[in-house]
Amino acid sequence: MPLVGMVQREEEEGTAIKHVKKPIGIVAKPNSSMAKEAIQVVVRVLEENGVPIYVERDTAESYSEELAGYPVFHLDSNPPERMIVIGGDGTLLRTIMKLKDSSPIIMGVRAGKRGFLLDVERYEIEDRVRDFINGSYRVEVYPRNRVYYADKPLPCVLNDAVLITKMAKMVKLSVYVDGDRIMGIDGDGVIISTTVGSSAYSLSAGGPIIDPRLDINVVTPLNPVQLYLRPIVLPADAIIEVEVSPGSNDLYLSLDGQEVVDVSVGDVITVRRCESPVKMARFKWWENYYERLYARLLAYW
Amino acid sequence: MPLVGMVQREEEEGTAIKHVKKPIGIVAKPNSSMAKEAIQVVVRVLEENGVPIYVERDTAESYSEELAGYPVFHLDSNPPERMIVIGGDGTLLRTIMKLKDSSPIIMGVRAGKRGFLLDVERYEIEDRVRDFINGSYRVEVYPRNRVYYADKPLPCVLNDAVLITKMAKMVKLSVYVDGDRIMGIDGDGVIISTTVGSSAYSLSAGGPIIDPRLDINVVTPLNPVQLYLRPIVLPADAIIEVEVSPGSNDLYLSLDGQEVVDVSVGDVITVRRCESPVKMARFKWWENYYERLYARLLAYW
Amino acid sequence: MPLVGMVQREEEEGTAIKHVKKPIGIVAKPNSSMAKEAIQVVVRVLEENGVPIYVERDTAESYSEELAGYPVFHLDSNPPERMIVIGGDGTLLRTIMKLKDSSPIIMGVRAGKRGFLLDVERYEIEDRVRDFINGSYRVEVYPRNRVYYADKPLPCVLNDAVLITKMAKMVKLSVYVDGDRIMGIDGDGVIISTTVGSSAYSLSAGGPIIDPRLDINVVTPLNPVQLYLRPIVLPADAIIEVEVSPGSNDLYLSLDGQEVVDVSVGDVITVRRCESPVKMARFKWWENYYERLYARLLAYW
Amino acid sequence: MPLVGMVQREEEEGTAIKHVKKPIGIVAKPNSSMAKEAIQVVVRVLEENGVPIYVERDTAESYSEELAGYPVFHLDSNPPERMIVIGGDGTLLRTIMKLKDSSPIIMGVRAGKRGFLLDVERYEIEDRVRDFINGSYRVEVYPRNRVYYADKPLPCVLNDAVLITKMAKMVKLSVYVDGDRIMGIDGDGVIISTTVGSSAYSLSAGGPIIDPRLDINVVTPLNPVQLYLRPIVLPADAIIEVEVSPGSNDLYLSLDGQEVVDVSVGDVITVRRCESPVKMARFKWWENYYERLYARLLAYW
Repeated sequence: MPLVGMVQREEEEGTAIKHVKKPIGIVAKPNSSMAKEAIQVVVRVLEENGVPIYVERDTAESYSEELAGYPVFHLDSNPPERMIVIGGDGTLLRTIMKLKDSSPIIMGVRAGKRGFLLDVERYEIEDRVRDFINGSYRVEVYPRNRVYYADKPLPCVLNDAVLITKMAKMVKLSVYVDGDRIMGIDGDGVIISTTVGSSAYSLSAGGPIIDPRLDINVVTPLNPVQLYLRPIVLPADAIIEVEVSPGSNDLYLSLDGQEVVDVSVGDVITVRRCESPVKMARFKWWENYYERLYARLLAYW
Repeated sequence: MPLVGMVQREEEEGTAIKHVKKPIGIVAKPNSSMAKEAIQVVVRVLEENGVPIYVERDTAESYSEELAGYPVFHLDSNPPERMIVIGGDGTLLRTIMKLKDSSPIIMGVRAGKRGFLLDVERYEIEDRVRDFINGSYRVEVYPRNRVYYADKPLPCVLNDAVLITKMAKMVKLSVYVDGDRIMGIDGDGVIISTTVGSSAYSLSAGGPIIDPRLDINVVTPLNPVQLYLRPIVLPADAIIEVEVSPGSNDLYLSLDGQEVVDVSVGDVITVRRCESPVKMARFKWWENYYERLYARLLAYW
Repeated sequence: MPLVGMVQREEEEGTAIKHVKKPIGIVAKPNSSMAKEAIQVVVRVLEENGVPIYVERDTAESYSEELAGYPVFHLDSNPPERMIVIGGDGTLLRTIMKLKDSSPIIMGVRAGKRGFLLDVERYEIEDRVRDFINGSYRVEVYPRNRVYYADKPLPCVLNDAVLITKMAKMVKLSVYVDGDRIMGIDGDGVIISTTVGSSAYSLSAGGPIIDPRLDINVVTPLNPVQLYLRPIVLPADAIIEVEVSPGSNDLYLSLDGQEVVDVSVGDVITVRRCESPVKMARFKWWENYYERLYARLLAYW
Repeated sequence: MPLVGMVQREEEEGTAIKHVKKPIGIVAKPNSSMAKEAIQVVVRVLEENGVPIYVERDTAESYSEELAGYPVFHLDSNPPERMIVIGGDGTLLRTIMKLKDSSPIIMGVRAGKRGFLLDVERYEIEDRVRDFINGSYRVEVYPRNRVYYADKPLPCVLNDAVLITKMAKMVKLSVYVDGDRIMGIDGDGVIISTTVGSSAYSLSAGGPIIDPRLDINVVTPLNPVQLYLRPIVLPADAIIEVEVSPGSNDLYLSLDGQEVVDVSVGDVITVRRCESPVKMARFKWWENYYERLYARLLAYW
């Protein structure tokens, strides 16, 4: 019997020597006054420390005044090894999705109402950028899943791959794990979530909270007629297949809520662990994950 | 204090004298071999008893051989006072939606895998058609809701009006009852269900089962980020308004899963009791509703 | 068809003339410094207005200094027609339970962390006692349920009657409504809740929120092995019977969480509407019930 | 950072040579005609194959006729290395609890309505006993948890440790994981379940299904007032502490539903991985765990 539940987060203490003078890339949510202010602080601190600045193409266009004159990079071809992403969770998810197979170290600056994954707040940008330059951070590695549609690889997802009804009509799905059928769903669809995603959409749909130290996947059915169905927690290396059954209405396959693919009867979606994880720089050592989570959940009042 | 949980469905014993020789209309699910067989039995029994047969236009086209030569009617203009509907729940819901404000007495014949609302089974068609001709049935009256979109009335619904995300992206809704805000939803949407609808989509989404003798509405949120939200049971005469809040993504408004309307930020959907209820002929007096319900739920294995 | 979801609570505008000079009774949570302070204000205002004061026996004992010299009454034999109850929800529930079949008008003063049913806050006691004396309030009538154990009547409950496992072992129950079996439960037990109780224990166990204008009962199963079971909303006049099935472990029958009765295999519990409702004086006219409810729910952080 | 998700099941292919002639112990549910029949078959096959038979003390007493003359053993002092347990899940759980720190290989024979953990059915006893003698089986290793009450070790549990209200009154608990507070519960209690236990009580209380290849713990709150609480899945080596908070009513600590300990305000319960796992002999190689699970769940109709 093969084994499961593996190392889910490498740690890699940064060192000042290693990183100094290496360029840092900037990616920001477009057309946001909060992002603009953050960009100004970030640029100033990087300049003061003599760190070469690279700017992501769309970001360069949106903030042409603040970011004029810096070399431009593309997320899908030449991202630098370290990047500062400014925005909300959506900005981070979109950035990651475009990265393809590279895994730069990302520092996340929250500029927006919600940003669970980005942990640098406005007031501390200056200090954290200095930490980032000096290598004073911990790298957390978040596994991702790659979704295959008809055996064709799609971008990797950090949170979840979701199959959901297209026109508010019942869909029919069969979910298989390593070849065994584990669920037959007549309902709105199904969520396949990583550990990180377990506190996002899956949670709203009745899924459990997964401790961040565990590396698993959760399969959460969406409003099934089969009232006895419950979310199932699976090993990260299990291969999950979802088949759209005869008689189903059409669906969307949504990747991290950012990209959408049309799916219909007979299609098979496969989910496997992605080769390239996400690497986030973390600056706060002793945080209680659960406090942070509840604070976020109860902010939605 | 008397009051309370009262008769919510009038009953009206049919009488032979009143109904005999009045025409009966036929509506059937198109292109179904099961419906075809049922049509043949229904036509034979009606003919044997000298009852004039009217045929719904689309049904007449789909079964041109079996139903040739009978007068044709339209559901939205001249439906007869008594009708036999052959098919599944979808056929019944579509038929009712087209009826506009008339409330003919409907006998439902199940021809399909699922038909909770249609209670005449294949083997008993002959006997039940005779009962229908002779007035040997009870009339159950099911209230419906009318949905208003931007103050414009849409068709009445028997089961539910559903606001649901269009592209698998989070929507933001505020629900008001008689002017009071009762829910703020960030999630997939919301279901507003009648008593009859409480055993359909709302049940899959976490709503309670409502005893068929009660006349109420249930507001069931769809996968809200606000984890503390629960379904709310409201008086049938309460006016429910759903407002699409700023920042929401686009939605569909789905009526009984049969008709779909586009909805976006700023739109207001209002739900009130519909003037014209649905009248179903019922032939089985002492049935246990709950046994029937569980049998149906557990058939989805 | 008119009917439906109607006024379920009579209202009765008090008039100054009718009430003036009639005595008012005082009941308070024992040994509480918050209750003590409230008593002092209440007594002062009643004295200033020449209203005769009666004191409930246990209250008189617990606050012998503040309440010395006033005539004493017993809740179960000679309660006055108007009473001020000071404490939390538990105090009110215990008071009501002892009242037997009388329905005095109760003004509730909150002295404690939680008191959803008592709506007069500390800062406004003086004004509200004057309103109570002058008849400036609305009477809300809350129906209660009477529970019968082996055909013997037990006290009426305002919130709920709960059958729950005694020793953390699985119990087996059959629930009947007007003779029809509606649930077979293998689990921790079952809650039978009124409309008022729907926001208490039943809500925690997965039951829906019931609009305060509806008069119904909710049957909520407690952690059943039968995963497809859902709460069922029933007409208030339906007769609910719970039978402890063969093979069940022992249970407690808990009445409003205040009184507990032993129950075992073969026992039958019957729940019917109680003849005597609870009458609460309400001073705030335009309040949004749902705001109040969410504020309370989210206070449990 | 320590690591998580570890090997959860050793496998050890039996070999005929190694086991032959070693004694096999018999444990059976007392006073059961089904168990009696099974005992007769087991004894006959063991005798025919010359395998020495040992009998557990209580079993020897209950089946004095069938098991007369065989040496007697005690589960807590001298259990043999291989045992056949005949009964339902309760029999197995009780047997395991008495075993203390030894981990004999157990073959489970189902004699009763429910026995998810025992997989040998009546009709195949003869063949499976032969397989057991010949070493033709796979050993599955199920981790257990040890519960500490006020730092004193209690027996290890296979399914769950449950803290539950004693007298149907609200309890208050704080749950900590490796020192971090992860839940504050005002409700009926909390379940701490292993992977195996995830399909038992925890599932009824809203917990997820855990794939049998994962080794984790699930913390599932029981009917909390805090409606936003969800089950949390934790690494198997995390140390879970539950503290009974001030103001709580009394509780029971129930171990696998078999043993009960009184708990009250200020008490701390600690749950850690147990040193001695349970070893079950499995005879069916290609079984789909989920099919088996659903079949069992839906048998509770």
